Amino acid sequence: MKTSIASSEATDLSVPEAQACILDRITPLDAEEVGLAQALGRALAEEIRANRDLPPYDVSAMDGYAVRAADITELPRTLQIIEDIKAGDTPRLPLQSGQCARIMTGAQLPSGADTIVRVEDTRPLENDKVEFSVPVKPATDIRLCGENMRRGDVVLQPGEEITPGTVGVLATVKRAMVKVVRKPRVAILSNGDELEALDDPFDPRKIPDSNSHALMAQVQTLGIEPVHLGIARDKPDELADFLKRGLGYDVLLISGGTSVGDHDHVRPTLATLGVAMHFWRVKMRPGHPVAFGTLNRTLVFCLPGNPVSSMVCFEQFVLPALRRLMGHRRLFRRTISVQLAQAVKSRQGRVEFVRATLSRDASGAYVATPTASQSSGDIRSMACADALVVAPHDGGNLPANAIAHAQLLETAAFQDAPDIQD
Amino acid sequence: MKTSIASSEATDLSVPEAQACILDRITPLDAEEVGLAQALGRALAEEIRANRDLPPYDVSAMDGYAVRAADITELPRTLQIIEDIKAGDTPRLPLQSGQCARIMTGAQLPSGADTIVRVEDTRPLENDKVEFSVPVKPATDIRLCGENMRRGDVVLQPGEEITPGTVGVLATVKRAMVKVVRKPRVAILSNGDELEALDDPFDPRKIPDSNSHALMAQVQTLGIEPVHLGIARDKPDELADFLKRGLGYDVLLISGGTSVGDHDHVRPTLATLGVAMHFWRVKMRPGHPVAFGTLNRTLVFCLPGNPVSSMVCFEQFVLPALRRLMGHRRLFRRTISVQLAQAVKSRQGRVEFVRATLSRDASGAYVATPTASQSSGDIRSMACADALVVAPHDGGNLPANAIAHAQLLETAAFQDAPDIQD
Repeated sequence: MKTSIASSEATDLSVPEAQACILDRITPLDAEEVGLAQALGRALAEEIRANRDLPPYDVSAMDGYAVRAADITELPRTLQIIEDIKAGDTPRLPLQSGQCARIMTGAQLPSGADTIVRVEDTRPLENDKVEFSVPVKPATDIRLCGENMRRGDVVLQPGEEITPGTVGVLATVKRAMVKVVRKPRVAILSNGDELEALDDPFDPRKIPDSNSHALMAQVQTLGIEPVHLGIARDKPDELADFLKRGLGYDVLLISGGTSVGDHDHVRPTLATLGVAMHFWRVKMRPGHPVAFGTLNRTLVFCLPGNPVSSMVCFEQFVLPALRRLMGHRRLFRRTISVQLAQAVKSRQGRVEFVRATLSRDASGAYVATPTASQSSGDIRSMACADALVVAPHDGGNLPANAIAHAQLLETAAFQDAPDIQD
Repeated sequence: MKTSIASSEATDLSVPEAQACILDRITPLDAEEVGLAQALGRALAEEIRANRDLPPYDVSAMDGYAVRAADITELPRTLQIIEDIKAGDTPRLPLQSGQCARIMTGAQLPSGADTIVRVEDTRPLENDKVEFSVPVKPATDIRLCGENMRRGDVVLQPGEEITPGTVGVLATVKRAMVKVVRKPRVAILSNGDELEALDDPFDPRKIPDSNSHALMAQVQTLGIEPVHLGIARDKPDELADFLKRGLGYDVLLISGGTSVGDHDHVRPTLATLGVAMHFWRVKMRPGHPVAFGTLNRTLVFCLPGNPVSSMVCFEQFVLPALRRLMGHRRLFRRTISVQLAQAVKSRQGRVEFVRATLSRDASGAYVATPTASQSSGDIRSMACADALVVAPHDGGNLPANAIAHAQLLETAAFQDAPDIQD
C-alpha cells in the first residue's frame, strides 16, 4: 500500500530553507502564570514595571561614617558620633556641624550628611569620637534614591528570557507570580520491528531503541519534560493508533521510518491522518532523510533512524522550533569560530556537521578536533563531542587549519580552568 | 559582642587562590542509582561496558539492493529479486549468482551479498527484476558487525558528564538505571532587618529580598533544587537558629552580612557554631566581601549583599564548588576571547568582572559591550548581560578594542541566527 504524500511537500531543501519552513509556521504558545521558582528559562509574557524607588532613599554604599563634607575640609578633624545607623533603621537625628553618624552599607543617610568616609580611613577615639585624616569629596560612596530603579519604570519587556538575573529583577519588584509562555507538550515515538525497548529482555539480534531516549534528553535540556509513547511496530493500524495519540501533543517527534522504502509507513500514515507534510530530506550530513509536517498547531518531525543523524536533526530543526514555541527570541545554538585540527571531508551540495572536541592553542584560540568516528551510527561520537563544526556545502573538503563555525553543545558550557590571572 | 574569627582565616586572596582554597576542600558526593530519564546533567559513577555487538550483524546503510559485486562488473545488468529484507528480518535465502535482495536501511545482509546498490541508482523492471547501470565497489554502504560497538568494550568512564549523547549510549547498552554522583542539598538564607520577603506586604522603606531568589535560580541552572530557609533578622539567637538549620545541608549560601561592621553577626555566629572560616574578602570587583568556611563536609559561603556582587561571587566560587560536589571535571564557565567595544575601568589589584552583551563584527569575531550600568546595586545589568568580561588585576584600565576573556552566562547559550550558509 502506498498512500501519496501531499504534492506541496518540498524536497532537498538547504538547512536554512528547512529551518525557515518550520519557523514560519510557529508562533509562541499562550501564556500561563507560574511561581517565581518555576520561571527560570521561560520567556516573559508581560511587561514588568518597578513598584518602588531603589534605593528607597539615599544610602551608604560602604561601612563607615556619614558626615557633612564641609566639616572635614581641614584635616585631621575629630567629630562626635551621635548615632549608629544600620540597614533598615530610620535615622533619628539630623547631623549638626561637628557631628557624624556611624553607618552600615545600605543604611539610610541622616539628613545633613552629604558624604561617606570608609571605616578603614578613620581612627576611633574615646567618648564616641572618631578622627578623620583622609580627604573625601562630597557625595562619595552614596547611592542616591532611585539610582537603580524608579517606581513605574519598565524593568523587563515581554519576550525576555528569564535568567537568574531576571529572577533577581522580578524578586526586586516583588513578583511572586509571573506570566510566562507555557512549555510545549512534547511526545516521542519510536518505530521499527527491529527495535528492543529499554525494558525488553535482551535479544542479541535486535537493535536497542536508543534514539528516543537521546531525544528525551535533548528535549529535557530545554527545560521540557517530554512523554515517551513507546515503540510502534511496522503494522499500519498499530502505527496509526500511536500517531493519533502523538498528534494530541504540541510537538510529535518520530524516530525512524523516514526513508524511501516500501516498508516505511510513517509518512503515508501521517498523510492519511491529515498531516500536511511540508518538506522531506534536507541537504545535510548526517541527517538527510528528515521530514516535517503540521496538523492544525501540532508540529510533526520525522527524524532519521541513525543515532547521530537523529540528534543532529534535533539540534538544527527541533531545538529552534521548541525555542520559538516557548516564546524565545534566540533560537539557535551559540556558535564560535574554530580552527580545524585536521582536514574534514565534505560532500559538495550538503552541509556537513562534524562532531568535534574543543581545545585551546597557545594564543587561546579554539581548535576543533573531529571525533575519531564520524559514522552516523556511532552514538559515542555524540557523547564525547563538545561541538558540531559546520562545513559549508559549497566548499568541498575543508583543509586542516581552516576556520569554521562550531555550534556549542551542552558539554561546552563548562571548561577545566577559570582563565583568570592569579 | 564580638566573637573572634579563627586565626587561620586568610584575607584578600586572589580569585584563583580563593577558588583553590574552596576546591581543595571538596571531593565528589557519594553515588546513587537513578532512572535514565533522571540522569541528564549528572556525573557517571560507574564504568559502562557494551552488552552486545552493534550492528549485531552486517547491515545495509541505505535503502537499496543487496547484490554480489561480481554480478555487476559488466553494466547494465538485470538481476532477479528473491527476497525483501527489512530492519529486524532474518534473511531466508543465500544470494546465488544472478540474484539480489531488496533491502532497507539497517536490515541484515543475506549471505552471499557483499555490496549495496542504492535504490536511486537502479531501475525496477517487471516480474521482480531490477536493472543496475551504475558501477558500485564491493563493500559499499555496508555497516559491519561490531563496527560501532563490541560486546565488553568500555563505552563510558566514571566521571563523564551525562549529556543527551551519553543518554543515547546508556540506552544502547540497555541501562534503564545508572549510578551517578548524587546532587548536593543546598540551602539559602537571607539576613538583614531591612529586607522585605517576597510575600511580605509592601513597605516603601524596605529593601526587597531579591538576592536569595537570584541565588535560587543560579543553583537551579545546575539542575539542583535548593531550599529557601527564609530571612534571619539581626538578632543573634534567631540568626544562630537559622544557621544551625542551614548547616544540616551540603552547602549553605548566606546572602548579606559579610561586611566589617559591628552589626554583622553572621561570621562571628558561624564561628561560635564551629564553622572554620577559610577566607574572607577576595581581590575582585564586584564581590570583594565574600567569605568561605566549612563544618565537617558542609560548605558555607557568605555572599555580599549587593545584588550583582552576590551573583558574580556565585559564578566564581559557588558554581565550581557545586560542580565538583556533583562529580564533574569541568568546573568553570566556558570563556571565549572578545574585543571590548569601549574602554573598561579597572582598579589596580582587583580583577574586575564587567557585565557585557555580545555581538559579532563583520569578520564574525565577538565584541563585548559593557552594560549601561556597572553599579553593583543594579540587578538589571545582570539580567541583560550575556557574559562577564574578566579585566585582569594588573593591567589597570583596559582600552577600547582590547582583547579579554569573557565568561559565557546562560543567555549566551543561544543566538539569533544559525550561522549556516544557505
